[in-house]
Amino acid sequence: MSSHVGKEVSIAGWVDVRRDQGKMVFFNFRDRSGSVQGVTLATSPALEVAKTLRSEYVVSVTGKVNKRPEKNINVGVPNGDIELEILNIKVLNEAHEIPFEKNADINIDTRFDHRPFTLRSERDQDIFKVQATIVKAYRDSLTRQGFLDFQAPALVGGDAEGGAAVFKVNYYYDQTAYLATSPQLYKQIMVGAFERAFTIAKIFRAEKSATTRHLAELTQMDFEMGFIDDEHDVMDALETTIRDTVNATVTAHHDVFQRFNTEVPRMSETFPRLTLKEALDIVGGSGDDMDPEHERAICEWSKKEKGSDFVFITKFPTRVRAFYTMSDTETDGLSRGFDLLFRGLEINSGAQRIHQYDELVARIKERGLDPEKFTFYLEAFKYGIPPHGGCSTGLERLTARMLELGNVKEASAFPRDMNRIDLLLRSDETA
Amino acid sequence: MSSHVGKEVSIAGWVDVRRDQGKMVFFNFRDRSGSVQGVTLATSPALEVAKTLRSEYVVSVTGKVNKRPEKNINVGVPNGDIELEILNIKVLNEAHEIPFEKNADINIDTRFDHRPFTLRSERDQDIFKVQATIVKAYRDSLTRQGFLDFQAPALVGGDAEGGAAVFKVNYYYDQTAYLATSPQLYKQIMVGAFERAFTIAKIFRAEKSATTRHLAELTQMDFEMGFIDDEHDVMDALETTIRDTVNATVTAHHDVFQRFNTEVPRMSETFPRLTLKEALDIVGGSGDDMDPEHERAICEWSKKEKGSDFVFITKFPTRVRAFYTMSDTETDGLSRGFDLLFRGLEINSGAQRIHQYDELVARIKERGLDPEKFTFYLEAFKYGIPPHGGCSTGLERLTARMLELGNVKEASAFPRDMNRIDLLLRSDETA
Repeated sequence: MSSHVGKEVSIAGWVDVRRDQGKMVFFNFRDRSGSVQGVTLATSPALEVAKTLRSEYVVSVTGKVNKRPEKNINVGVPNGDIELEILNIKVLNEAHEIPFEKNADINIDTRFDHRPFTLRSERDQDIFKVQATIVKAYRDSLTRQGFLDFQAPALVGGDAEGGAAVFKVNYYYDQTAYLATSPQLYKQIMVGAFERAFTIAKIFRAEKSATTRHLAELTQMDFEMGFIDDEHDVMDALETTIRDTVNATVTAHHDVFQRFNTEVPRMSETFPRLTLKEALDIVGGSGDDMDPEHERAICEWSKKEKGSDFVFITKFPTRVRAFYTMSDTETDGLSRGFDLLFRGLEINSGAQRIHQYDELVARIKERGLDPEKFTFYLEAFKYGIPPHGGCSTGLERLTARMLELGNVKEASAFPRDMNRIDLLLRSDETA
Repeated sequence: MSSHVGKEVSIAGWVDVRRDQGKMVFFNFRDRSGSVQGVTLATSPALEVAKTLRSEYVVSVTGKVNKRPEKNINVGVPNGDIELEILNIKVLNEAHEIPFEKNADINIDTRFDHRPFTLRSERDQDIFKVQATIVKAYRDSLTRQGFLDFQAPALVGGDAEGGAAVFKVNYYYDQTAYLATSPQLYKQIMVGAFERAFTIAKIFRAEKSATTRHLAELTQMDFEMGFIDDEHDVMDALETTIRDTVNATVTAHHDVFQRFNTEVPRMSETFPRLTLKEALDIVGGSGDDMDPEHERAICEWSKKEKGSDFVFITKFPTRVRAFYTMSDTETDGLSRGFDLLFRGLEINSGAQRIHQYDELVARIKERGLDPEKFTFYLEAFKYGIPPHGGCSTGLERLTARMLELGNVKEASAFPRDMNRIDLLLRSDETA
């Protein structure tokens, strides 16, 4: 607005702050482009209206752009060198008294109770602008790499993977449908037709868990690719995608990292790739998988020793991975599955998949599942599917670790969990 | 590949067609980049393997790129001037005998039964590549116009709009949740915080309807914008978005329109905007809304008289529109709602919304709904929301009309309806 000094302008936005100094009323106005200071002088015809305004009133303001006195200039702040001498104020919508200062440090449940209001806080504005950049960059990178965007279904006919807890839906004619726990089977079907496919899809997990890592409804960014040699081809594509995403986020939101007192993610020239055994040896653990403590410890190690906030873990035992995971022919009992950890948390899980029909049917039976229930999925394997693999990144987890949020729920605009859909659920309100 | 004439190359893909001529075997191979013809000569070491291949086998092929004899050149077809003299074939995966020729003209239910296979047909390849372009162009246009992408929830706590039939979900502790029939309330909340927001979200409709227009799970492209004067500002933004989307689709897929024997959509300099009354007068109808016949007739008129395949209808009676629709102050009983019709079908519905808290609460009560159930939503209106409006485009409908598909279900990769989730549902399989 500095280029308009001396001119009359009109703006529309919210009253962010009002300071009534009796003879004069000062304002901060905000809109999606930023904020600007305004002053209603004692002589202004707008003074009477100015005195009635409160925070969050929506207004249209006409005023003259003045240069601020030297001592009042906020160096480096957009519009920090000017203020608006207010000539006219039109109230577009009123606001009730706000429940608390929107940038106050309030406990997370109260924040969620008032989400429509707290989304206006600087913290939430930052989180969801960063999240939009992450989604766009992730998608653009995959598109550049030749992946086709498709719409995976949320309603599915069966609890296909037989693992995660699943929500049931009352479908037509009293039949039961389920909410998808993953777009996995559909993206494999897409590989049979399009070689490379991705989807950004809602998935649903009914685990009775209320940890800081758990949401009942999540956004997964999934891709799957054909004609690979092994899981490292998938990891290469993922690494490219994550690198593009981090770079786009850092470029667009350098100021946000400063406000969150967070470093921008460190990325070494290639992300370290450790087998599960190597990783457990480093952190002094053992077993078939890593627990949260191990994940934190190996990420500390990776950052310190390898200069990378991202680290791949490979060669998990086949028995702890999903049924469609390919075994590693070179090693006993180990699979071609991998995880990507970021700042102490698993944000992505992937693998080379079984691509031969007979082998897949045998594996389904081995796991005690019924191949009949996979008829549709298996058709993709009957008619020639290439060797393939893929992976899935949790959008809320990636966002949360990018800004080092303490709770993944903060990275969901409208979080759902055991106790909450928008507002807290109460058992006496059941239908 | 023409630039490789005389050189040895390796390709990986599917056997599209095999023609065994005894001494020689001819192939069409395809991958996501296109197709190429190959020939296994009598002297080739690959002849034995070549004779075992069937359609849909996945292979890696090494061969010499030869210029075709002049009489065999397919002019204008990519790789139409060369063929691959096959030296080696490696089978990456086998295929069972295919159920029918993938490009055969099969009835729609059989196609859906075999969707993992028919997605490989030229028709389905075209539809879903066009759809990916539509989604990308729509999103890119809104991003350019300053809208923030957000993730709207699919699980909601109540049947908020009180209109459409809704699927019930068994949530935690035997509570009932619902599948969203629209992201409407959430995008309005987002306007209170971000001014302009969009989401591409799954919605769910439990209507007992099996028409060619109905899906149980749909993808909606929704946006909502603040600081508007009236619904025409929303229509302007939508017109820009649709225009960008059509242009991107036509540019990327001119060949698809030819294959579907369909004209590219006609767009006049501005899309015609008719009031409901004007439109009904033209088509000789009357009443509060348009029936499918009227929609087809007014689109015919618009194309013929105005040179536009798109036509807006405005000023529907308030009583036939959703509760949050703003009444038009200038006219009696009419609203600021609009529809956009495209080639005979409503593909978008929108409006200016009520933005004043008291007016909205009064309207909710007027409709016999309970304001208590809207506590969360109403908070956005308590604390100052600007005058705003928005609209919602059905992705499957837009895709279907773009290519003049007879059934909107064809534009869903994995269609769900009363009778189908992947495969046909049978009542004796209920859980």
